[in-house]
Order: sequence, then structure tokens, then C-alpha cells
Amino acid sequence: MKALLFPLGLLGLIALGRLLSLAEAEPPAASTSPFAGGRWIDLTHEFAADTLYWPTAQRFQLEVESRAMTPKGYFYAANRYRASEHGGTHIDAPIHFAEKGKTVDQLPVDQLMGPAVVVDVSAQAAADADYQVNVADFEAWEKAHGLLPQGIIVLLRTGYAKRWPDPKTYLGTEQRGAEAVPQLHFPGLHPDAARWLVAQRSIKAIGLDTASIDRGQSSLFESHRILLEQNIPAFENVGDMSLLPATGAHIIALPMKIKEGSGGPLRIVAWVPGAL
Amino acid sequence: MKALLFPLGLLGLIALGRLLSLAEAEPPAASTSPFAGGRWIDLTHEFAADTLYWPTAQRFQLEVESRAMTPKGYFYAANRYRASEHGGTHIDAPIHFAEKGKTVDQLPVDQLMGPAVVVDVSAQAAADADYQVNVADFEAWEKAHGLLPQGIIVLLRTGYAKRWPDPKTYLGTEQRGAEAVPQLHFPGLHPDAARWLVAQRSIKAIGLDTASIDRGQSSLFESHRILLEQNIPAFENVGDMSLLPATGAHIIALPMKIKEGSGGPLRIVAWVPGAL
Repeated sequence: MKALLFPLGLLGLIALGRLLSLAEAEPPAASTSPFAGGRWIDLTHEFAADTLYWPTAQRFQLEVESRAMTPKGYFYAANRYRASEHGGTHIDAPIHFAEKGKTVDQLPVDQLMGPAVVVDVSAQAAADADYQVNVADFEAWEKAHGLLPQGIIVLLRTGYAKRWPDPKTYLGTEQRGAEAVPQLHFPGLHPDAARWLVAQRSIKAIGLDTASIDRGQSSLFESHRILLEQNIPAFENVGDMSLLPATGAHIIALPMKIKEGSGGPLRIVAWVPGAL
Repeated sequence: MKALLFPLGLLGLIALGRLLSLAEAEPPAASTSPFAGGRWIDLTHEFAADTLYWPTAQRFQLEVESRAMTPKGYFYAANRYRASEHGGTHIDAPIHFAEKGKTVDQLPVDQLMGPAVVVDVSAQAAADADYQVNVADFEAWEKAHGLLPQGIIVLLRTGYAKRWPDPKTYLGTEQRGAEAVPQLHFPGLHPDAARWLVAQRSIKAIGLDTASIDRGQSSLFESHRILLEQNIPAFENVGDMSLLPATGAHIIALPMKIKEGSGGPLRIVAWVPGAL
């Protein structure tokens, strides 16, 4: 009988504690987040005057409208921004290279979120600025980690994010204009691997930490065309992925919702399980 | 003995099935998402020529660079965008009205994500275009749903999202320029309620479906100043919240990462538990 009374007494005390807590108007903790037990890593470069763009594209500009006290006695800051869609950390919407592909506002948000894998080719990319990630790189990854899961977001880590925003080492040239385009040197995805991903696997989206999913020396942009024709968007100029595990990260990549946009600024973050 | 052999045999069959599955290169399903069992609702208006801005702000413009076949035989589309930071679905970073407040790039992403509550004042706002959400509205909400949890994202639903993008009914005027500002009529948050939220509760961020957290008739922007001085950002021109529950939704609100920005375009989505 004593053994039964004890737990009832304990429950009573807990109930009393809750009542007292309400009486003191102590707000309860927010309900458990689906992302408890992990942390967020921001994979987005800032938009600023030195943000890298294609040599022929309009760079980012911020025009200050106000950053001062007003006559009414309060501080007020506001700016205007302008840029090309395809610079900085951004998304290529399918229509960028596919006439019937989706515009950026037509991409469903659940295609831009979900579990991700990281294929690390930073050693190859460090040795060869014209490196193309090929089927063998994916096969090696699968040998270690299992087949690419259906609906996965694939991230290619070339290590180039650490060179950002130095145009000479990140793009291969600090020159601007059409004459600079043949001097672009940075790694990308080989068209054979793009075809393999489209035909043999089922991915939601792909991203990498260089300026383009096709390498700098590409002139036909075949990997773009292969992926975007299948409505698989590409995230470009993604930030440093060195803290992401090969599997287990969760990506949320939300672009500016530009109506009929061929792409645009992207905020991309990764949730990684475990403490810092 | 038979009873023991049967389960072993079953496990053997499962193992054999998995091996066969691998041999056929059938990709496994992606690991379970933290957001399984719910759906996403996009709360973001598109950026387009008719996107609503403050009468004195620069509206959104998209300039087409290319949307055609190239001489090399592939289709190519790209655009340039420009606008003021504070129009369309956007975030007010603390520095917008607080000299020492954070700029938009300094807001940690976990402040912009998490459980949300919806305070529905659409009946009051329908009856009064100058309505201000006050402490009594929050007290009524708490009476029904309990105290606002710590670290919650507060969404105010005025119902004005359904009027978007009609300037006359959404802003109160279709005129532009400084002379239109006194004609702005739309609901906002009362400064008393802003003070109460800051002093009595502990919220991460606040959002609403009108053009400003202060009502259209405000001239001192006190609710902005009270919230932003505490580094509590505001989401403005949020989309239609009618499918969101009073509690249980999870918000992800990711702004364009403008270095030193006072705000900027925001992509805001809500996860809602349960099927459509």
C-alpha cells in the first residue's frame, strides 16, 4: 500500500509544480524541434561588392538609401540591391538551360530540402583545376557508403569554397568581360556523370562549391543541360562543406522566389546531427 | 527447436532479399526525414513587377539578359534583378530601426527557424483597416492555447494576404511617392503589445501578412523600434496563413544573405503536421 501511495504522491507534487509554474506565468519551453540533437551550418556566402560572378554578369551592388537618424528622432537604415541571378551562392532553375524547364518560383520547396550526401573530391580538385567529377567518383563513394538513396540531394565538395572570394584562385582569372571566359579554370561535374545520375539514380538536386556545375573550361554546358532538362536544379558557389559528414546531413535550400526567374540568390543551410 | 529455426530462416530470407536488391542496383529510400508525416506550405509571395512595395521604395524589376537559343545550339535564360530591401515577402533585420542592431547576414539561422504559433486577428482586421493587435489578443490566445512558449516564432494572421497584390485593398492606396504615405491603411502590432512581448515573453521572431509590423497609419514606427532594439526580426508581407494551425507548425524563414543588409527578400515556409 505504501509502495502505491508513493508514486501517486510524486505525481501529485509534479501536478502541483505545474500549477504553480502556470500561476507564475513562466512560459513553457517550445515543443521539441525535429532538429533537436544537431546544429545548423550556413553554407551561404554573403552578397557584397566582392561576391564572385561570371565574368560577363552584373556583380552585386548595394545602394544605401538611409543609414542615419531621421528628423523624427529614430534611426533608420534601408538599401537597394541589384545583381545578375547567377552569381554568389545561387540556384540554377531548370529553365536556365532547358526551354521547357521550371522557373525558380515553380520548384516545389520539398525538392529543395532533405537528406544529403557529400562526395568529397577535394584532393582531386586540389591537384587539377580542370577536374571533372566522374562516375568512378560516385562508384567509389557508393562502395564506402552504399548506393545513393532515392530522392537524395548530392553535394560535391571540391574544397574551392576555401578560396572564396579570391577570383584568381576560385575562378582561375581576375579579369572581367567576355575575354576572361576562356581563362576560367575550376572543377565541375563530367557530363558522363550527369548522365549516370539522371539515368541510374534518382536525385532531387545537386550542388557544389564552384561557380558552375560544368567546369570552367566547358563551352557547351552539357552537365547543366542534362540535369536541368530533367528538372534537377543545381546549387552553385555553395559554402564550405568541410564540417558535413558523407551521410546524415539534412539540407534546406531556399531561393529568392523570383517569378519566371532562371535562378537567383539561394540561402542554403545544413543540419548536422550531434554536438559541436 | 522448430520455433527457433523459423525466425532464423525468415531473417535469412530478408538478408537474401537485400543482397538481391543490391545486385539489381535498386537505390534504397532516403533516410527518414525529420519532417515525415507533414507537408510544406510556402508562405512567400513571388517577386514580380506587381509585387507591393512601400510607396517611396523602388519596386522589383527583372531585366531579361537572355531567353533564347544560342548560336552554339542550346537554350539559355538569365536575368538581372533589382529592388529595395523592404518590399515583397521580406525580413526586417534589427538594424533597420536600431543603430546597433544586427544586419541581416548577422542573424543566426536558428533564430529564423522553429515552432510557431498563429494569432488569428482576421475578424478584427476585416472590420478595421487600422486595427492594432494588442495585449488582449495575446491574452485571449493564451487562454485558449496556453502561454506563448519560450523561443517561439509568433505569426499574426490579419487575413490581408488574400488581398495581395492589390495595392488599393492591401496598402490602402494605389498611389506612389511620399504623398501616398499618409494614405496607408492596414493593420499592425500595437506598440503596447510589442513592449509586452519583449518584456513578458521570450520570442525569436515575429511575422505578419501586412506590409509593416506597425500599422499603415503609424508615423513613429514604435513597434519596429521596440522589437528590433531587442534583435527580434520581423517578417513582413508573409503569405496566406489560413492553412496553419494555432500551434504545431514549424517555420523556416531564410533571407537572402546581404552583407550589412537592413533586411531583404525572405523565403518563408511552414511545415504543418498531418496529411493534406
